[in-house]
Amino acid sequence: MQGNTPFQEEAINAIRFLSADAVQKANSGHPGQPMGSAAIAYTLFTKHMKFNPANPTWIDRDRFILSAGHGSMLLYSLFYLTGYEEMTMEQLKQFRQPNSLTPGHPEYGHTAGVDTTTGPLGQGLSVAVGMAMAEAHLAAVYNTPENKVIDHYTYVIAGDGDLMEGVTSEASSLAGHFGLGKLIVFYDDNRITIDGGTEITFTEDRAKRYEAYGWQVLHVADGNNVDEIDKAIIQAKQDPRPSMIVCRTNIGYGFPTWQDKSAAHSGIPSDEELAGAKKALNYPVEPKFYVSDKVLAHYREALDRGKKAQEQWEEVLTAYTRAEPDLAAQFKRVVTGELPENWTKALPTFEANPKGMATRTASHKIINALAGVLPELVGGSADLSGSNSTTIENTPLFQKESYEGRYIPFGVREHGMGAITNGLNQHGGFISFAATFLVFSDYLRPAIRLSALSDTGSIWVFSHDSFCLGQDGPTHQPIEHLSGFRAMPNLVTLRPADANETVRAWKIAIERRHAPTLLALTRQAVPTFDREKFACACGTEKGAYVMADLGPAPVELVLMATGSEVELAVKAAEILAEEGHGVRVISMPSWELFEAQPQAYQDEVMLPQVKARLAIEAGTSLGWHKWVGPEGKMITIDRFGMSAPNDFLFKEFGFNLEEVLGKSRELLKK
Amino acid sequence: MQGNTPFQEEAINAIRFLSADAVQKANSGHPGQPMGSAAIAYTLFTKHMKFNPANPTWIDRDRFILSAGHGSMLLYSLFYLTGYEEMTMEQLKQFRQPNSLTPGHPEYGHTAGVDTTTGPLGQGLSVAVGMAMAEAHLAAVYNTPENKVIDHYTYVIAGDGDLMEGVTSEASSLAGHFGLGKLIVFYDDNRITIDGGTEITFTEDRAKRYEAYGWQVLHVADGNNVDEIDKAIIQAKQDPRPSMIVCRTNIGYGFPTWQDKSAAHSGIPSDEELAGAKKALNYPVEPKFYVSDKVLAHYREALDRGKKAQEQWEEVLTAYTRAEPDLAAQFKRVVTGELPENWTKALPTFEANPKGMATRTASHKIINALAGVLPELVGGSADLSGSNSTTIENTPLFQKESYEGRYIPFGVREHGMGAITNGLNQHGGFISFAATFLVFSDYLRPAIRLSALSDTGSIWVFSHDSFCLGQDGPTHQPIEHLSGFRAMPNLVTLRPADANETVRAWKIAIERRHAPTLLALTRQAVPTFDREKFACACGTEKGAYVMADLGPAPVELVLMATGSEVELAVKAAEILAEEGHGVRVISMPSWELFEAQPQAYQDEVMLPQVKARLAIEAGTSLGWHKWVGPEGKMITIDRFGMSAPNDFLFKEFGFNLEEVLGKSRELLKK
Repeated sequence: MQGNTPFQEEAINAIRFLSADAVQKANSGHPGQPMGSAAIAYTLFTKHMKFNPANPTWIDRDRFILSAGHGSMLLYSLFYLTGYEEMTMEQLKQFRQPNSLTPGHPEYGHTAGVDTTTGPLGQGLSVAVGMAMAEAHLAAVYNTPENKVIDHYTYVIAGDGDLMEGVTSEASSLAGHFGLGKLIVFYDDNRITIDGGTEITFTEDRAKRYEAYGWQVLHVADGNNVDEIDKAIIQAKQDPRPSMIVCRTNIGYGFPTWQDKSAAHSGIPSDEELAGAKKALNYPVEPKFYVSDKVLAHYREALDRGKKAQEQWEEVLTAYTRAEPDLAAQFKRVVTGELPENWTKALPTFEANPKGMATRTASHKIINALAGVLPELVGGSADLSGSNSTTIENTPLFQKESYEGRYIPFGVREHGMGAITNGLNQHGGFISFAATFLVFSDYLRPAIRLSALSDTGSIWVFSHDSFCLGQDGPTHQPIEHLSGFRAMPNLVTLRPADANETVRAWKIAIERRHAPTLLALTRQAVPTFDREKFACACGTEKGAYVMADLGPAPVELVLMATGSEVELAVKAAEILAEEGHGVRVISMPSWELFEAQPQAYQDEVMLPQVKARLAIEAGTSLGWHKWVGPEGKMITIDRFGMSAPNDFLFKEFGFNLEEVLGKSRELLKK
Repeated sequence: MQGNTPFQEEAINAIRFLSADAVQKANSGHPGQPMGSAAIAYTLFTKHMKFNPANPTWIDRDRFILSAGHGSMLLYSLFYLTGYEEMTMEQLKQFRQPNSLTPGHPEYGHTAGVDTTTGPLGQGLSVAVGMAMAEAHLAAVYNTPENKVIDHYTYVIAGDGDLMEGVTSEASSLAGHFGLGKLIVFYDDNRITIDGGTEITFTEDRAKRYEAYGWQVLHVADGNNVDEIDKAIIQAKQDPRPSMIVCRTNIGYGFPTWQDKSAAHSGIPSDEELAGAKKALNYPVEPKFYVSDKVLAHYREALDRGKKAQEQWEEVLTAYTRAEPDLAAQFKRVVTGELPENWTKALPTFEANPKGMATRTASHKIINALAGVLPELVGGSADLSGSNSTTIENTPLFQKESYEGRYIPFGVREHGMGAITNGLNQHGGFISFAATFLVFSDYLRPAIRLSALSDTGSIWVFSHDSFCLGQDGPTHQPIEHLSGFRAMPNLVTLRPADANETVRAWKIAIERRHAPTLLALTRQAVPTFDREKFACACGTEKGAYVMADLGPAPVELVLMATGSEVELAVKAAEILAEEGHGVRVISMPSWELFEAQPQAYQDEVMLPQVKARLAIEAGTSLGWHKWVGPEGKMITIDRFGMSAPNDFLFKEFGFNLEEVLGKSRELLKK
């Protein structure tokens, strides 16, 4: 490569061929991306990245996100070369093998150094926007002119696929609006996608689009040239805007027949193709996985640089701790993800009230009570703040001029919001939530899945949780969403029945720092149950609990419900008890939490021996057979909604006392 | 308003105040949008739109999509004013009431004249891209220089919310790439969103972004000025690029205290606010729902214009039919959505083969067999054509230079693909499919929901339907997706077990012209069952069927499975039968189709009296209790996947013969 020294070339080739050799050995993977962007990675990791391979979770490290996650071997090669302890040569050879640290796509929490899980395109770059926001916020809140405890960049390598995905459009627009100058994205402009050249589908002017978002756009004509890349990074750092560095690269650089072709994307190179590339780039054909001592030593200088960088930072932190002991204590707490002592004391208790309040309204009070004791609580809504009841009072909006703001106006950008929320939580220093209507959770489902998959404590606050939301009609009425989320591993879905269950739901969500929680909240008022008459709302933490056994023992009928439908169950039970029946009411805010309880507790609550069982939920029937059994009944909804007043819909869809009593009596007769 | 005549003003105000009166009467709705964009609608519907209120489904009408669907009263007012028969004044007064034709958001198929369902932001504009593609394709295939049987525009009103959504970014990029010159979008640039002014979150240069996509961008400084709007439309029509007309408008135009404020978005105007607006705009305060005869007569000229326009088109069609009888017959057939006679004869039959083939591979052969007899079959993939096996042979790619192409390179734009596919199907003249990996169905879930909600026959082709997809790992392995789709009303999910079930699945999908179908297809090979030994694959059409009863009667054990897991059930049944047990194997490609069968058939297949029941599916357990009952067992997967070779995963996750036999024997012992 013109311009690079032979040694630089060799070092870059080490990344290329560790990657390609690993793909060949695994007989699976994507060699083209690492071979094409190796020079970018080399320049960044040897000349710019502030990181400490000996401490991959150091809070003030620069973040690096390979948004084009299929190029995972690029990352693993870098981790090995720069000296991440667990990333041994053996791990590289175990690429894509069971239980290795080198899975097909980079997995956050699985492999040290992976700053976020990527593979589903568009997510990485969007998460990176969240990380740059995280940095900006922490810097605004904690840094002093003398001591900057947070001061890092967020770097991304993104490909054509990332730039085509709508989620990156949303997040990139926000990055421009927020003026995130420490976000630097390398666009791996190789002009090749799986189906062919970008000329078949992606001819828009990408640079101009990013300029329109308010970004600085720089160009590197030769994406293999270290000096050009280096200069662009320096320029990017100097600009107050987020920067995109458009690097003209070649997928599968060096492959004799595959370079610049789709085949390089996920083709497994033959010995001939691979040897041809090594020869073309003056790299030893054998042995496989070859790295010269000199090259390795060069990369491993990162250990020393990283140690010094972290030591410098620790000096700053020490001075900061002396100057700002309270802030420093808070900073140290929030970045380690520990909750403050006695934080639960801030949780409100709601008095019994037959008129009650919407659970979204309770949620609003809880958020603001928590905001007072949890400075790390930050969130926002996709332009439905009033409806979702998520506004945090007494804080400015998060804006370019007020990064200390804790409330984020995401705009109508649900998917970007989801990824950004994951980014805030994965950066460290945050408990972050995101809100929209439950029905629009569909728009950010890929981000919700990634929070679940990557053990990230994002809190998803979804109001308007049933057809009972007024007259907006079926486009706004969730039906299948609760079932859809119950199916998702590692996500806890909570649908509280009243204000006090909502308190417990938030408590659970706040405590789940390593897994996501979804809160489904009502638009309409629901009674705040009298907890002297009914069981403690703390039962929420077990997922389901006996609200009350009404009427004479033994229990003849089990009524179970979630959220707003618990009221119906209670009312029906009271009437049936008056009539002399023994009726149990179970509130079931979370199936997942209940299923995690010991079988004995589950049986104790469910009374499986009682065959007269009725479930009530304004969602689909899917899954309820598990709880009602073959002889039970359900009041659920397996059709789309309708634009009409709530009272009409309650009648039309069977969510009314008459229907509950009718079905209950049929069951009691059996 | 400066520039408009008093009569034009009165006519525009009729739209504004029919809308605002209806919102006030319903005590629900969104007055701000119609009041702000009434002049755009007036100009378009009186000076440009080719439509026939007496025949709202005329295939060559201009399409009009209110992407900002919350402004639904704008549409309903226009339909009433221009003389759509069913849209009476009484319907306007029934806005948002049960079973009216005026639901909260416009519903395709429910209200004549509504060209697509909108409300979930971003969908309308993206669907419109599909409609413009539909027009371009039909024109390329059918028009002759003498006779243009398809020649219409697609108009859209889109708001800030639409432009923030990622799905419109994807679709708009494609519209620019495809050079869809007959797509004209009015951007209702009112600078207000629900949470406040656009300055809090949406400061990108929207015009520049659309220029970057390859659009012509025009500006109307006063969005209430008919002449300015008219001139812009004329200019838009003359350019070969899609056009965005940025119209500076005022949300809630005329409201004394709400204009240009968020309150106008969904506030219910008080009598004072509403009267104030009417006074300010010189409109009679009373009676409500007032339209002068003169204004009504002016709008109703649309009936005559429409009649003439359609008559002219019918003359063209007659001449065309004479000149091109075969093409004309085909054109008439495809636009009415009728299938050709004997089309099913094209369906292949696959010979029994123990090695078999992947169902995606069978699907590829079926697609291409069908493509020969169904010229309306058009589809594409989100940059995974080879992997999804969806390429249509012997046709060019759909491109600016080849609109006749039947295969669409969507790029990595799943969500835009979903909306565009709905647009093709809703336009008429198409059976359109879209493909990606099952796990990435999450990206287009909002579009899939809209296909189900609006009775649209989109076909969703999702390959790589289980963890068994090689070593890409959990980001690429679907787990919860089958359950998630089974929960969605009106969608039929089909997971065929072999090549011949895949044939039947496609047959079902092709025949479902008024509801969507999802095909979940394997990456890996599955045996093609010997249908002389096992039941006919035609059982697929009933959703579930008895593949075989093996061993001696009576049935002691029921094994049920879907897709690739049917092989395991069959193998286990054969072994257990050898051992002297009566075992039934049920293939269950579609729960939804099975649940639609008479109870007698369901019981006949399921044998509910047999308590030893085992379900096998490489998806979550959610919902399977319904079929296995309280004493049954399941081999399912309730965790995320793993990057490892398939053989390892089969063992790790329990999808192997040993496990099936083990669980079966436990059940038989009971």
